[in-house]
Amino acid sequence: MEKIKTKRERVKFASDNVAGACPEVLEAILKANDGDRAPYGDDEISKNLQDKFSEIFEKEVIVFPTSSGTAANALALSTMTPSFGNIYCHKLSHINVDECGAPEFYTGGAKLVNLNGVNGKITAEELNKSISGKGVVHHTQPSSVSITQLCETGEAYELDEIKKISEIAHNHKLNMHMDGARFANALVSLDCSPAEMTWKSGIDVLSFGATKNGCLAAEAIIFFKPELVGNLPFLMKRAGHLLSKMSFVSAQLDAYITNEVWLRNAKHANAMGKN
Amino acid sequence: MEKIKTKRERVKFASDNVAGACPEVLEAILKANDGDRAPYGDDEISKNLQDKFSEIFEKEVIVFPTSSGTAANALALSTMTPSFGNIYCHKLSHINVDECGAPEFYTGGAKLVNLNGVNGKITAEELNKSISGKGVVHHTQPSSVSITQLCETGEAYELDEIKKISEIAHNHKLNMHMDGARFANALVSLDCSPAEMTWKSGIDVLSFGATKNGCLAAEAIIFFKPELVGNLPFLMKRAGHLLSKMSFVSAQLDAYITNEVWLRNAKHANAMGKN
Amino acid sequence: MEKIKTKRERVKFASDNVAGACPEVLEAILKANDGDRAPYGDDEISKNLQDKFSEIFEKEVIVFPTSSGTAANALALSTMTPSFGNIYCHKLSHINVDECGAPEFYTGGAKLVNLNGVNGKITAEELNKSISGKGVVHHTQPSSVSITQLCETGEAYELDEIKKISEIAHNHKLNMHMDGARFANALVSLDCSPAEMTWKSGIDVLSFGATKNGCLAAEAIIFFKPELVGNLPFLMKRAGHLLSKMSFVSAQLDAYITNEVWLRNAKHANAMGKN
Amino acid sequence: MEKIKTKRERVKFASDNVAGACPEVLEAILKANDGDRAPYGDDEISKNLQDKFSEIFEKEVIVFPTSSGTAANALALSTMTPSFGNIYCHKLSHINVDECGAPEFYTGGAKLVNLNGVNGKITAEELNKSISGKGVVHHTQPSSVSITQLCETGEAYELDEIKKISEIAHNHKLNMHMDGARFANALVSLDCSPAEMTWKSGIDVLSFGATKNGCLAAEAIIFFKPELVGNLPFLMKRAGHLLSKMSFVSAQLDAYITNEVWLRNAKHANAMGKN
Repeated sequence: MEKIKTKRERVKFASDNVAGACPEVLEAILKANDGDRAPYGDDEISKNLQDKFSEIFEKEVIVFPTSSGTAANALALSTMTPSFGNIYCHKLSHINVDECGAPEFYTGGAKLVNLNGVNGKITAEELNKSISGKGVVHHTQPSSVSITQLCETGEAYELDEIKKISEIAHNHKLNMHMDGARFANALVSLDCSPAEMTWKSGIDVLSFGATKNGCLAAEAIIFFKPELVGNLPFLMKRAGHLLSKMSFVSAQLDAYITNEVWLRNAKHANAMGKN
Repeated sequence: MEKIKTKRERVKFASDNVAGACPEVLEAILKANDGDRAPYGDDEISKNLQDKFSEIFEKEVIVFPTSSGTAANALALSTMTPSFGNIYCHKLSHINVDECGAPEFYTGGAKLVNLNGVNGKITAEELNKSISGKGVVHHTQPSSVSITQLCETGEAYELDEIKKISEIAHNHKLNMHMDGARFANALVSLDCSPAEMTWKSGIDVLSFGATKNGCLAAEAIIFFKPELVGNLPFLMKRAGHLLSKMSFVSAQLDAYITNEVWLRNAKHANAMGKN
Repeated sequence: MEKIKTKRERVKFASDNVAGACPEVLEAILKANDGDRAPYGDDEISKNLQDKFSEIFEKEVIVFPTSSGTAANALALSTMTPSFGNIYCHKLSHINVDECGAPEFYTGGAKLVNLNGVNGKITAEELNKSISGKGVVHHTQPSSVSITQLCETGEAYELDEIKKISEIAHNHKLNMHMDGARFANALVSLDCSPAEMTWKSGIDVLSFGATKNGCLAAEAIIFFKPELVGNLPFLMKRAGHLLSKMSFVSAQLDAYITNEVWLRNAKHANAMGKN
Repeated sequence: MEKIKTKRERVKFASDNVAGACPEVLEAILKANDGDRAPYGDDEISKNLQDKFSEIFEKEVIVFPTSSGTAANALALSTMTPSFGNIYCHKLSHINVDECGAPEFYTGGAKLVNLNGVNGKITAEELNKSISGKGVVHHTQPSSVSITQLCETGEAYELDEIKKISEIAHNHKLNMHMDGARFANALVSLDCSPAEMTWKSGIDVLSFGATKNGCLAAEAIIFFKPELVGNLPFLMKRAGHLLSKMSFVSAQLDAYITNEVWLRNAKHANAMGKN
């Protein structure tokens, strides 16, 4: 079972947007550039990501590479939230504070319901109290929950915290999203498996961040429930996030998750952040 | 004055989305990766683009780098078209046919008015006849015109064709957009200056394409009229198109427009396309 | 079977927006005002409309009263067209020309594909040729077809014309919408039953117009397929089209369809229009 | 100067959506129906409203009649809030809780920033603390403030409270909106003039409610600053809120504000509510 720790320290991440890419990722870009590649994600590197991520997550997942974390979050949320829906999130969450209303843009006007939480993390109890109005036509409709891992204060949600939140969400038929901009840092910090930190704890869709941990511009939207994919391919294209030379994004992700590069980078970053 | 040519041949571009980046661009990415860079376009490479593009266009321009041509088009059009606006374009245009409704998404529902044109190019006459309903509350409002250079059939608009179309547009107080996904190819084909093919012929905003001509993922929205920029920075961020490590997009553009790399690439591509 | 006529004359309708309501409708408003009524359509008059319209259409239908024809059309289309969808319609259609982009607003940016048609009516053949791109992520997706009955030139679609169009639509898995702003005039002109002119000919959702034919401000969205209702109640509320005193709209509709008031009004109008 | 009162009691309004219209309003509808009227608000009754409301408000105002309070609020807010804007409002406010996200829909995804307030009313102090992030591209932009008069708990904002809130808003270049669903009740309760309760206290745009106080379905969006009208006529049409027979809405408003009908109704309602 998952190993729960107490007294985990917060990690500071001042520099993760200013540093460049790690050597393995750069090399992969150069290599991907060698020879013609089918455009729009139909290349072999992109296609192989499905299997590689499925292996990492110990489950068949559906993966959409993208070059922006804000886009990954907003696109993911738009598959699980109608225009008249509520997204429950921490008041300090990146989607609420730092994306200039991207979730609202992509969903067509959903409402981000702000939770106060504790230490930057929402709690199952507060979430449960906040969900109301289901089925009443005057109210925006409870639709999804989004948590950030690591959260905005640098703390990680423990596995049982995620499970409790997911349980409340699913009891109310809401979908669970994880903004994993610093997914690897959290994983290393919790010392658990990717599966344990996501679908085994009730996460339905993950924004898998890589840019802040060694890539130039590479993120992935990962679906643990294929039925939630919905119209995502059209929404992505329509938003200008289906790059023609998608293989160079996929190549970054491929190098990132190969030979534990991502975990090594995260361990290093966490160690630096604690000093 | 501009040199007008007759009987220009169409250029075929089957492969420009499948080929990789040219060596200068790759080298620039590697170099940009060397050392920390301010995020979100506040780095020196990005800032210097303003001057470099201004020099190329013989006019002070405002430049927004982006990694997607569809996004460049849709963002540009959203600054010059309200949600109830008409965008006049060729029925075969990329914005109408191949972007899954991106202009509609970014404008909040504008209408793309399809013109039949001749040989893939719209004509000033047909445009003039199509503009109607201005000020009448029941009708969507004429707002902007978009032409593709090279157009979708591979032909280039001659300078006097652009001028006539722009004149009609401006007479009706519409803004002129050029989708320059193959801007360099057109420039080489017309053998004129960037200024002549754009603002000197009445273009207000340009989607400057580079991905199809030697970059990995780099385009630029170029404003010849600063007053049209409007809220673009917020709209870009909100759409997930303000990349944190924007410097690596800017570095591609920088290498692309330095030492005539772009023109050399285009000359080569045009020569290949004619065979 | 349906009676098909030839050489039907066009009807002119210059005055149907300027005339007032008929006596029966006014009387119903006064009567509805007598005593308290449950708000937001939970009153008895509104509830009874379900049965009354079901009787008229010889099928159990789901009815949403509204006070605007533009809203009825746009709301109906938004239940059958995603933001990246195509709505096939005549180039002269009211939804395309006279509603200031309401369908685009309500769908979140769908594309109205203009058909040239013959005499103001689209044809099954042209529709069939126009539908393409299904499943291809670069293209907006064929989603729905809208015809206006009477159409904008004053002509009525014959029953077999509607059937052929619906057959093409359904073969391609598109939904059929009828803008029945002048539904009663068409019905009287064709001398057929409401059922024959709608669901028996393949119509899935109807904008049932009453304002132009004797009401003050009363229309109804009528679903012949309950599975298409989707999230309409929330979309209506969200658009400000769920009036608190909805009973006074319902009262108009109730009086309008009682004792053949609507058919009598339409017969009179058609007779006047032919002179 | 304004008369400030203390210890005003809350008013309960259980029944104002279920009661019918008052006799004067009904009579006006009947009278408006007598004879042809220009459609879409070009009739004499609608046009005269501009003068009548200007007289009432002691200032030249611009008036848009509408049949829905939710639409009046959302349309008003959409003229003063961009898609990436913040609307500051009480957490219990009707626009936040009871309109199923109408402001988000009409603005294209603005964010309603919830204030805790005191006794159902926001305070200038809390507003001032909440406004931040102006000009920073990552954050949604402070754009407008909306207060409800009477507020959702039944209390009225005192004139000096409105003035202090408006001062903060205007200092930050935000626009002030008043949701006056129960405007008349508040006016009677404060015993001040319409001008004092609105533009003289800093209100820029008012949703003037009439449905809850004697009309069937009649509200008005009233602009005290003509420059804020912007594109409202197009947005209204596009939303299906420009009724063809607008004269019957205007007739209700006309009767409502003539001979102090509205004030008499409100006095009666307030007296009943206090028992």
